Amino acid sequence: MRRFYGWATPNSQRVSIMLEECGLTYEAIGVNIRAREQFAPAIVALNPYGKIPILVEDGLPPLFESGAILIHLAETHGRFLPRDPAARAQTLAWLMVALTSLGPMTGQAHHWTDLAPEKPEAARRHTVGLVERVYRLLEGRLTYQPHLAGADYSIADIAAYPWIARHAWATLSLDDWPAIARWFAQVGARPAVLRGMQVPAGARLD
Amino acid sequence: MRRFYGWATPNSQRVSIMLEECGLTYEAIGVNIRAREQFAPAIVALNPYGKIPILVEDGLPPLFESGAILIHLAETHGRFLPRDPAARAQTLAWLMVALTSLGPMTGQAHHWTDLAPEKPEAARRHTVGLVERVYRLLEGRLTYQPHLAGADYSIADIAAYPWIARHAWATLSLDDWPAIARWFAQVGARPAVLRGMQVPAGARLD
Repeated sequence: MRRFYGWATPNSQRVSIMLEECGLTYEAIGVNIRAREQFAPAIVALNPYGKIPILVEDGLPPLFESGAILIHLAETHGRFLPRDPAARAQTLAWLMVALTSLGPMTGQAHHWTDLAPEKPEAARRHTVGLVERVYRLLEGRLTYQPHLAGADYSIADIAAYPWIARHAWATLSLDDWPAIARWFAQVGARPAVLRGMQVPAGARLD
Repeated sequence: MRRFYGWATPNSQRVSIMLEECGLTYEAIGVNIRAREQFAPAIVALNPYGKIPILVEDGLPPLFESGAILIHLAETHGRFLPRDPAARAQTLAWLMVALTSLGPMTGQAHHWTDLAPEKPEAARRHTVGLVERVYRLLEGRLTYQPHLAGADYSIADIAAYPWIARHAWATLSLDDWPAIARWFAQVGARPAVLRGMQVPAGARLD
């Protein structure tokens, strides 16, 4: 028995893509963050941070934080995170770029371009600039490598994809980033990615 | 031969603490970010993101991103990241809280409370609020557990410690967070932490 708690958010979609890529069976439970359902006692009991995604598997404590879930599933199922030390170190480094820069800074940009009641221009400019700095890094990498970690598709790509899908949150267009756009089209054509992006069924942010 | 490139920044100190905890020999090379040395061609050749810390070890590509380096050293030396699936998953989850929330949001708060030429009140309030949300989570956890991942000291504590040391960047005081303060004093008394926080010798941010 495996239960996935999520919504149509980039961090949730990382996990639903990974579940689909690994061919796992799971029950998807919608937690509508626009209705603040992540703060319901039943969810906070699973993740004291009051955030999704959460994965509940038999014999394990509830697991939260999308990056931790990606590594856990990769190790448990032997997929998308190489064991060879050099390839593994590269994969972890690019995974971390997605987890600690691309995600948090695109989220902050989204706040200042869209969600915040008051939108100071200095905050918008600063956060969009931080996202552009990550895009420059990814564009350079993907100009010379097919995937973020190098030759092979990995959890680094899975962690980055749903955030790149939200480039508009940082007022960016993929027309300006051709290598990212090539990678985005290629990753987005994977059947598991197409399926994972639609979980939970009917969830919408906007 | 092992070379560590860093400065007196929380992300660098994560790595120097881990190197000390693992009892490894290394050469520490100062990269003064106040002098923008992280953008020098020799550094960008090691990390295209133009950031520190960076770890260079024989037989491996240059490794960047503090979280990737912590996991790499933990796995290579068999320390501070359990192999048991339940304990490992918990450790990874709390590591990710430090890597993706505590670090990035304290960094953003530091920008709006101190570094930015223009400091809109909305930006200061928003980012300090995000840091306070992480502190509430950590306070709750450390009220009932000696360490972030549970009973044992782990890379989650190492990732969090140097950022908690910079609580003033988010205009917070540990007097208001007694469980965090207890943990902070206990972790900070470890000889390896005391040593790691002073690497590279003479490095200062302010």
